[in-house]
Amino acid sequence: MNMMMIFAEDFISGSDNLIKICDDRRLTHLHKVLKVKVGKVCQAGLLNGKIGTAEVLEIGENEIIMRTQLDNEAPPKLPLTLVIAMQRPNTVKKIIHSAISVGVKKIIFIGCFKVEKSYWDSSVLQSESLAYEQLLALEQCVDTCEIEIEFCRYFKDFLSNILPRLAENSQLLLAHPDKEENFSKFIDEERESVLFMGPEGGFTDYEVNMLKEAGAKQLSLGRRILRTEFAFTALAGRFLR
Amino acid sequence: MNMMMIFAEDFISGSDNLIKICDDRRLTHLHKVLKVKVGKVCQAGLLNGKIGTAEVLEIGENEIIMRTQLDNEAPPKLPLTLVIAMQRPNTVKKIIHSAISVGVKKIIFIGCFKVEKSYWDSSVLQSESLAYEQLLALEQCVDTCEIEIEFCRYFKDFLSNILPRLAENSQLLLAHPDKEENFSKFIDEERESVLFMGPEGGFTDYEVNMLKEAGAKQLSLGRRILRTEFAFTALAGRFLR
Repeated sequence: MNMMMIFAEDFISGSDNLIKICDDRRLTHLHKVLKVKVGKVCQAGLLNGKIGTAEVLEIGENEIIMRTQLDNEAPPKLPLTLVIAMQRPNTVKKIIHSAISVGVKKIIFIGCFKVEKSYWDSSVLQSESLAYEQLLALEQCVDTCEIEIEFCRYFKDFLSNILPRLAENSQLLLAHPDKEENFSKFIDEERESVLFMGPEGGFTDYEVNMLKEAGAKQLSLGRRILRTEFAFTALAGRFLR
Repeated sequence: MNMMMIFAEDFISGSDNLIKICDDRRLTHLHKVLKVKVGKVCQAGLLNGKIGTAEVLEIGENEIIMRTQLDNEAPPKLPLTLVIAMQRPNTVKKIIHSAISVGVKKIIFIGCFKVEKSYWDSSVLQSESLAYEQLLALEQCVDTCEIEIEFCRYFKDFLSNILPRLAENSQLLLAHPDKEENFSKFIDEERESVLFMGPEGGFTDYEVNMLKEAGAKQLSLGRRILRTEFAFTALAGRFLR
């Protein structure tokens, strides 16, 4: 972690800047990785709040007392929503990590023809697991603000309930390897954008047509086949500033 | 693998299109993942040669005979060389994978102040290991052409022996998070380019100055801290076409 996340319940009652860390995960990091001593100052941020530092005041057997000073806003999110076909569990984790790291404002996992049904039963999709993956990604990229991760199991429901709302104010970008076009030509990096990415094996022609009818422009990353998380990062990189 | 790599020694003697696959790695893939039967056609490519298909003709107990038809050129490489500080072994693998996948033409791992000396002893750097990582990446991204992976242990040697040659014909781009500049402004994606990336903890001021004196322009990915392989992919994505 490049920043330690702190939570409202870490604050010692009656204090607005003293916290007590007593969970294994963070204690282990403070002891084993940062090897903290009294006086050590670490980067810290309050979940969905500000970012700053935490200084070690006392090291107890099962707790560390720290004084926080949180003055900076979290970095702004990119004007980018990722709509991606449900992936195998390990790839879901990688996608969440890379999408949150670069700063997307929302991820929607959708069903479509080539998504294996069993993916929807993965324990990775449980809310505690999602929250934990978010936490790791936020601590890595030094951000505190959680994003919405939404699921829509049926492509038909996505088309009728979610897509029209997305299409209203955003440019729609469809990453689909059929076309030998340089994707960079189409992208207006300043605009609110939605990026669609397909499953392993790609969207079907029907799905591609439906997305295009809604206004999506088809982009290609060229002839090379990139792993989903790399293809996403290569595209999202256009929006970084 | 999205393409099975074949090697000159796979060809049955006297034939220019019949191959015999008898190594565990590819046999396992053909049997377990592709579940091939006679007549099945797979994507295949000859190492450092052309890309096409291989059709299953015979399935023996410990071998599979296939007929190849290799008509297409490998995809062109990007006009991009990656010069990156030596990383921990797992990150080296990820960097090789992502750099080869996007199509860089060369990777140079260099030493600098904040590189841990032990990284240079990693077994990942042995030539068989490097060749294997390349192979996996090429099979994933559907390319056949190996690239040069070079090592220069001392920053001083890099400055005097390698950098001047790189600087001659290329724009030099330094990914370094100190500056709050939008990196996209500087990049001319059509030009032959060299991208410098630092170690965990970054290049020192001295190192940054030396690279800038050689003509490198400093780019930032913004306030977020990305894992090395994602930062690389976000930057390399600019060059994809």
